[in-house]
Amino acid sequence: MAQTLIYEGKAKKIFSTENPDVLLMEFKDSLTAFNALKKGEFPGKGSLNCKISTLIFKLLGHHQIAHHWISTSEPNHMTVKKTKIIPLEVVVRNILAGSLAKKLGREEGEVLARPLVEFYYKDDSLADPFVSDEQILIMGWATGQQLEHMKNQALQINQVLMQSFQNADLKLVDFKIEFGTDSQQQIILADEISPDCMRLWDVKTNEKMDKDRFRRDLGAIDQAYREVFERLSKGVSL
Amino acid sequence: MAQTLIYEGKAKKIFSTENPDVLLMEFKDSLTAFNALKKGEFPGKGSLNCKISTLIFKLLGHHQIAHHWISTSEPNHMTVKKTKIIPLEVVVRNILAGSLAKKLGREEGEVLARPLVEFYYKDDSLADPFVSDEQILIMGWATGQQLEHMKNQALQINQVLMQSFQNADLKLVDFKIEFGTDSQQQIILADEISPDCMRLWDVKTNEKMDKDRFRRDLGAIDQAYREVFERLSKGVSL
Repeated sequence: MAQTLIYEGKAKKIFSTENPDVLLMEFKDSLTAFNALKKGEFPGKGSLNCKISTLIFKLLGHHQIAHHWISTSEPNHMTVKKTKIIPLEVVVRNILAGSLAKKLGREEGEVLARPLVEFYYKDDSLADPFVSDEQILIMGWATGQQLEHMKNQALQINQVLMQSFQNADLKLVDFKIEFGTDSQQQIILADEISPDCMRLWDVKTNEKMDKDRFRRDLGAIDQAYREVFERLSKGVSL
Repeated sequence: MAQTLIYEGKAKKIFSTENPDVLLMEFKDSLTAFNALKKGEFPGKGSLNCKISTLIFKLLGHHQIAHHWISTSEPNHMTVKKTKIIPLEVVVRNILAGSLAKKLGREEGEVLARPLVEFYYKDDSLADPFVSDEQILIMGWATGQQLEHMKNQALQINQVLMQSFQNADLKLVDFKIEFGTDSQQQIILADEISPDCMRLWDVKTNEKMDKDRFRRDLGAIDQAYREVFERLSKGVSL
């Protein structure tokens, strides 16, 4: 395929392909946190995230969640449907942790009465600010219908993932997803779903098995990501 | 009246009275900004804010907005219905300015397509974080019905104030209000409405006539507050 780099992000490169409706994503070994103020990497991280994302896209497809994944070529490449990304990070939280625990002055680990869906405006220069539905509508980043659809999809995805991670002895604390509109103007799940953009705690010990190991200098990041992949491979039945 | 100080805030003191359903508010001359990191005062500010708030409560009552104001005794005292304050600052914005302009990386002065209602969780130790409807509901700070009621009231108040300030040659850029529940569990407008908690720009010159003069060291704060009172006294017909 004739590939041209069209975008390089913090953890991925995106290439065009010969098919204008298809993109190639390359998962990088680099890790960043705090809006890229902290940087790191570990060999094999791109490959692990590519495999974990592949597994999750397959699982979600099995549950009728529309997504951009087409195929994966080892070790770290994925072809996906081209979409126009909606400039919102959609966060689902089951347990209070990270920035929200800090913002509300609460302890990490508080189980929420029900899953909470939040939106953050995707803009690195503004550090992805938290925004309300009304702000999104007035700024024109999404329509009311699109917002409702993304919320519903996010909650359905949460249901599916919660179950699968439980089978893998992992608690799904929270995760971030992104949506895009495809050539038919359908909203589909895009980006990646990996320990880079979720919090996963061991079901028994509450040990962190995600990017918080990097954010908080807990070490053994690679083992944690590998363990997530291995447990998920066994826990997810398709 | 037997008065006991029950609360002292950044700009007001609250006293109990002989009537358990009535409180006395004393408007202080002090000014604070940036969560009280910046402090100042000017003689007569308490009295001006008390007069402006009185005028606005009367105006809103005339338009069937339920509020806590009962009476004013010059220079800076107001009796109000006792309420249990809902821990949310309700902000209405007509023109982009201040923290929201900064957060979204936009220029101050952009007129919004329609008024925007926002909620901030009242907690000085957390610097009053911006919160979404879902966060409010899950944290239990208000019910869905209370949220809708506050939004509707906020928009109605905005309508009334926009018109009156226009008559006073002032643009109502944004304002912050608070609500409380009274002894009958009715939600009524509480706190104060003064240039301390609104942005007012001269209709012709866009000169700032509110607490931004203090926040941004523009000087002539007292003249601005006095001018707002004088213009409003002429502009508001009851």
